[in-house]
Amino acid sequence: MSPFPSSASRTENWHHLRVTTQDGVVTVTLARPEKLNALTFGAYADLRDLLAELSRERSVRALVLAGEGRGFCSGGDVDEIIGATLAMDTAQLLDFNRMTGLVVRALRECPFPVVAAVHGVAAGAGAVLALAADFRVADPSAKFAFLFTRVGLSGGDMGAAYLLPRVVGLGHATRLLMLGDPVRAPEAERIGLISELAEEGGADERAAALARRLADGPALALAQTKALLTAELDMPLAASVEMDAATQALLMHGEDYAEFHAAFAEKRPPKWQGR
Amino acid sequence: MSPFPSSASRTENWHHLRVTTQDGVVTVTLARPEKLNALTFGAYADLRDLLAELSRERSVRALVLAGEGRGFCSGGDVDEIIGATLAMDTAQLLDFNRMTGLVVRALRECPFPVVAAVHGVAAGAGAVLALAADFRVADPSAKFAFLFTRVGLSGGDMGAAYLLPRVVGLGHATRLLMLGDPVRAPEAERIGLISELAEEGGADERAAALARRLADGPALALAQTKALLTAELDMPLAASVEMDAATQALLMHGEDYAEFHAAFAEKRPPKWQGR
Amino acid sequence: MSPFPSSASRTENWHHLRVTTQDGVVTVTLARPEKLNALTFGAYADLRDLLAELSRERSVRALVLAGEGRGFCSGGDVDEIIGATLAMDTAQLLDFNRMTGLVVRALRECPFPVVAAVHGVAAGAGAVLALAADFRVADPSAKFAFLFTRVGLSGGDMGAAYLLPRVVGLGHATRLLMLGDPVRAPEAERIGLISELAEEGGADERAAALARRLADGPALALAQTKALLTAELDMPLAASVEMDAATQALLMHGEDYAEFHAAFAEKRPPKWQGR
Repeated sequence: MSPFPSSASRTENWHHLRVTTQDGVVTVTLARPEKLNALTFGAYADLRDLLAELSRERSVRALVLAGEGRGFCSGGDVDEIIGATLAMDTAQLLDFNRMTGLVVRALRECPFPVVAAVHGVAAGAGAVLALAADFRVADPSAKFAFLFTRVGLSGGDMGAAYLLPRVVGLGHATRLLMLGDPVRAPEAERIGLISELAEEGGADERAAALARRLADGPALALAQTKALLTAELDMPLAASVEMDAATQALLMHGEDYAEFHAAFAEKRPPKWQGR
Repeated sequence: MSPFPSSASRTENWHHLRVTTQDGVVTVTLARPEKLNALTFGAYADLRDLLAELSRERSVRALVLAGEGRGFCSGGDVDEIIGATLAMDTAQLLDFNRMTGLVVRALRECPFPVVAAVHGVAAGAGAVLALAADFRVADPSAKFAFLFTRVGLSGGDMGAAYLLPRVVGLGHATRLLMLGDPVRAPEAERIGLISELAEEGGADERAAALARRLADGPALALAQTKALLTAELDMPLAASVEMDAATQALLMHGEDYAEFHAAFAEKRPPKWQGR
Repeated sequence: MSPFPSSASRTENWHHLRVTTQDGVVTVTLARPEKLNALTFGAYADLRDLLAELSRERSVRALVLAGEGRGFCSGGDVDEIIGATLAMDTAQLLDFNRMTGLVVRALRECPFPVVAAVHGVAAGAGAVLALAADFRVADPSAKFAFLFTRVGLSGGDMGAAYLLPRVVGLGHATRLLMLGDPVRAPEAERIGLISELAEEGGADERAAALARRLADGPALALAQTKALLTAELDMPLAASVEMDAATQALLMHGEDYAEFHAAFAEKRPPKWQGR
């Protein structure tokens, strides 16, 4: 439940995504397997609004983003998105591209960790959704491809030209965004694009296990870790150190820190409250 | 041709570089093989002015930077540069070091991708020129060495202390810039300093092939990808996402994006116009 | 001696650290081996003040940070620090966390290179001390663990959420700071967290050799290299290039640059003066 509920009603049914929740873990599945989970306007809009709603809920502890069928996500649908955008005017195009960018910002700024479960194709916008997650659990079938230049667009889409150099370094990022060549699991692991390599067919299961572990952890501490990682990419050293100090001072008055100390003294595992 | 020609005349002959052009690919060769292509004041000045002229030409689609003979570039000439700078006053020293820095800025800011073809030694300023390129195609003989501290100068030369941590991470960058030890091809590949490892003796050929591929691609989309990669290193997330959105909205009204869609429908490769 | 001595007296005895000096190399040893060198309030305060005093001394050329006994440092002492902070008020907690952050800032901003010699455990604040060093020389027993979330705190402690993404990339940094899992030497080397892998039991010796090499080098050039690496993480490209130009112009009027040229002409090794 939101600690500060507004008059806005919660959405019961998301038409363009499958959303399930279990004990604090929300699983969002892209579920158009017949189209390799190609994104539609509706899927982007649902991701934007779902993440905004979930970010208000104190009960959400972790989120898994997965794809049904043969792959994770093939990116924007060629017919429904590329075709449609060709008929749009400038204001509409800005609205569309800002919406997709908002999804990435929401993934980076939501107060819980996001785990992408990647098997098969993660292409175009699908690759950027995975990139914006905190963790990428991938199996050996994973194939990342930042295809934007292949359709005549900029490789800097939805923040990719910001995020990718900060994940894999500027050299690899330039190559990936300029050329759009596929990056298979071994290379993705070598350059730091994968957080955990699962066994063939095991990405969803390992991602769920990681999300469960995170959800059972000290939620506020994890949320603040994510917030600092996101913010300090854009901050200088001295300000970052000060922000860390203020954050730790805050958390040192929290229940979980005291619980750790009590559990340590009693030689038992801590029972995290997430505050 | 420049879309906005001024009264300035184009330079027909570059005395300190070999410059050739073929179908949109400019190849700039450091051609003092008897000195391992050691850089002179003239070579720096020519690079500065050549890149400025090329950046005004819509016809340039990609640039290859190569070295003739046994290596890529041994850096500033010990006699012609180190010796001469010892006699300079402060204003002259600032002029010299700003000129070399301008070459790096021009490589990062020119509106076409730059491919460095590296074999043998890439030392000192030669290593930084390669570092400032978008792609480093190297063969197994490649040996990078940021030698600045070996001559009593700062490892932060021509932007190296800015660029190298963003390419290979702060740990490796500190080691390389502080110690000036050589980095051979296998390590360079492992830490992300190399974009493509060519066969022995094949760096020039592979670099030419990559430049050709880039030149035949959607030039405006590639130019914007480079511009965003360069700019977003210095920008926060939210502003980067907004910049990406504006850029894609622009390119979605471009000819190449429509051409992709038409080609896709007709099941043929797109004919890129570069706009 | 300090070039600008104040009335402040130099500290003769550091009660919470072992400090030795030899020919410009200061070795600081965490020496509570019975507690795996767990940090106390006194150790943090001594590190803060020692680094401030050493930063005023022109004679310090390099610093080694090492741990006595079975490991490098197990982090903040569970009893002396975690227990004590539970009883602190907000102002005291801020004071404590700012003090630890000041140690990291001092390590990044002191005008000489810092070499961490890591064997065994480098956990929590111990991992961040190593991270803040310029070089991490580790042996195969090294085990880094950013344990903060394990005690209910933020992984962003003492600047870790700023530094770690800039050393190993955002993907690895997120995993390490969120989960607190141990990173053993092979992985640490693979992701760029280790500067030099020593033989088993050889971290102290190799770190001392590296510090000696640095101390015998051109001290001012090395200090400026470090200063630029630190500063340019927070600076845009154009300003970095300008800062490099001004720094090199300064050093080109220095004695070491002239000495290099003379030595080169005389085919002898340079005798660095550090200015």
